[in-house]
Amino acid sequence: MNRDKNLIIEVEPIGVIHSCFTEKFGIPRQPGMVPEATAELELFPPYNREEVTRGLGQFSHVWIHFLFHECVAEGWKNTVRPPWLGGKKRVGVLATRSPHRPNHLGLSVVRLKAITDGKKGVSLQLSGVDLLDKTPVIDVKPYVPYSDSIVAAECGYAKGEVPEVEVFFALEAIAFCELYEVKTGRNIKTLIEQLIKQDPRPAKQKGLKAGFGILLWDVNIRWTVTSNGFLVESCERVK
Amino acid sequence: MNRDKNLIIEVEPIGVIHSCFTEKFGIPRQPGMVPEATAELELFPPYNREEVTRGLGQFSHVWIHFLFHECVAEGWKNTVRPPWLGGKKRVGVLATRSPHRPNHLGLSVVRLKAITDGKKGVSLQLSGVDLLDKTPVIDVKPYVPYSDSIVAAECGYAKGEVPEVEVFFALEAIAFCELYEVKTGRNIKTLIEQLIKQDPRPAKQKGLKAGFGILLWDVNIRWTVTSNGFLVESCERVK
Repeated sequence: MNRDKNLIIEVEPIGVIHSCFTEKFGIPRQPGMVPEATAELELFPPYNREEVTRGLGQFSHVWIHFLFHECVAEGWKNTVRPPWLGGKKRVGVLATRSPHRPNHLGLSVVRLKAITDGKKGVSLQLSGVDLLDKTPVIDVKPYVPYSDSIVAAECGYAKGEVPEVEVFFALEAIAFCELYEVKTGRNIKTLIEQLIKQDPRPAKQKGLKAGFGILLWDVNIRWTVTSNGFLVESCERVK
Repeated sequence: MNRDKNLIIEVEPIGVIHSCFTEKFGIPRQPGMVPEATAELELFPPYNREEVTRGLGQFSHVWIHFLFHECVAEGWKNTVRPPWLGGKKRVGVLATRSPHRPNHLGLSVVRLKAITDGKKGVSLQLSGVDLLDKTPVIDVKPYVPYSDSIVAAECGYAKGEVPEVEVFFALEAIAFCELYEVKTGRNIKTLIEQLIKQDPRPAKQKGLKAGFGILLWDVNIRWTVTSNGFLVESCERVK
């Protein structure tokens, strides 16, 4: 017997994500797809001291190692149906990036916009994220293209062709977004557009036309399918 | 206070690496540099069942998430001196891929040569590794170029220019390698060549000329610096 099998490794969060994605539905399936999706990585003490990230600002992108914290309770699955295969075919969980994996570890490459140093210490300002709000982060690494970027890698079924859909806004929704941006500084209209044009509907809901909702920060967005695209019907603050 | 700070995440190995790198010295500084460096990832039950990796064979490369198990006892450091900077300048540990990091988590992209199913269940056959023998593996993910490959990412000081040195072999060393390959099937001569031509000497030893050793599997390799390159003087089995 190999004793390593019984090793338990204790990992602690070095920080936490504050993002626009208050719930799982609508989160882009890969990072980088929605540039307007921003997040702050708040580093915890003692990792929030200036010297720990010194030099990181020279890199345009970073790897975020995180825990799929909302999937831990559900456990892991032998096989899953990835959205890449239209949600129809089952493949092994280790052949996917599904959160329902052993140890529930996630990995995303995101853009590093800035390193800020405030009352809570050092935070990283990120964009192009696919990270749920309150995600525990267990490591940050610089993205080094000469070893991380393998352009010619073969990727089987995961081709990444995302058909884009045209997105329209009802006048009231536009008015809401403009006011919200004035109040909060958040460019929510562009974010909604980038998110919805990728068709965030789960594969089994592709036939449905009405009544989709996405929660971004504290805003509930309702949209429907029309003959020529998607229509954002309403946006309203919750609570 | 954010309660997440006190969260302890328990992670268990899903497998273990069997590689040619019996000790840390000589391990390539990034994966992919030494194609002949091969390893087997033995998956542990229940992850060694066929269905868990079904479909992974369509990918040419995989991410290996692992623990820098030989660095855990040393703890983490605020700042380190990466080899990229000639071992002279200090940068924050999170601006590097150093093992002396919080949580000691490593990440390598390696080539997936084959998925085999034997007595111990499923194993992954890897090449281009920079992984120490007995490394605990905590996750495997397919490499998906459309999100993982960012050719234009800026990487500051980490330019990856590795000056290659010519490698010569003493006649006895060649004879040893030929015999060893017949007995074990391991192409150790090519491996030694690929490893040493990248100059594995630590920055502070660049001035030294004689008496370098690398242990690969059970073979101790001795090499020295000559006027026109590196000379492999001897290879011998240990124990």
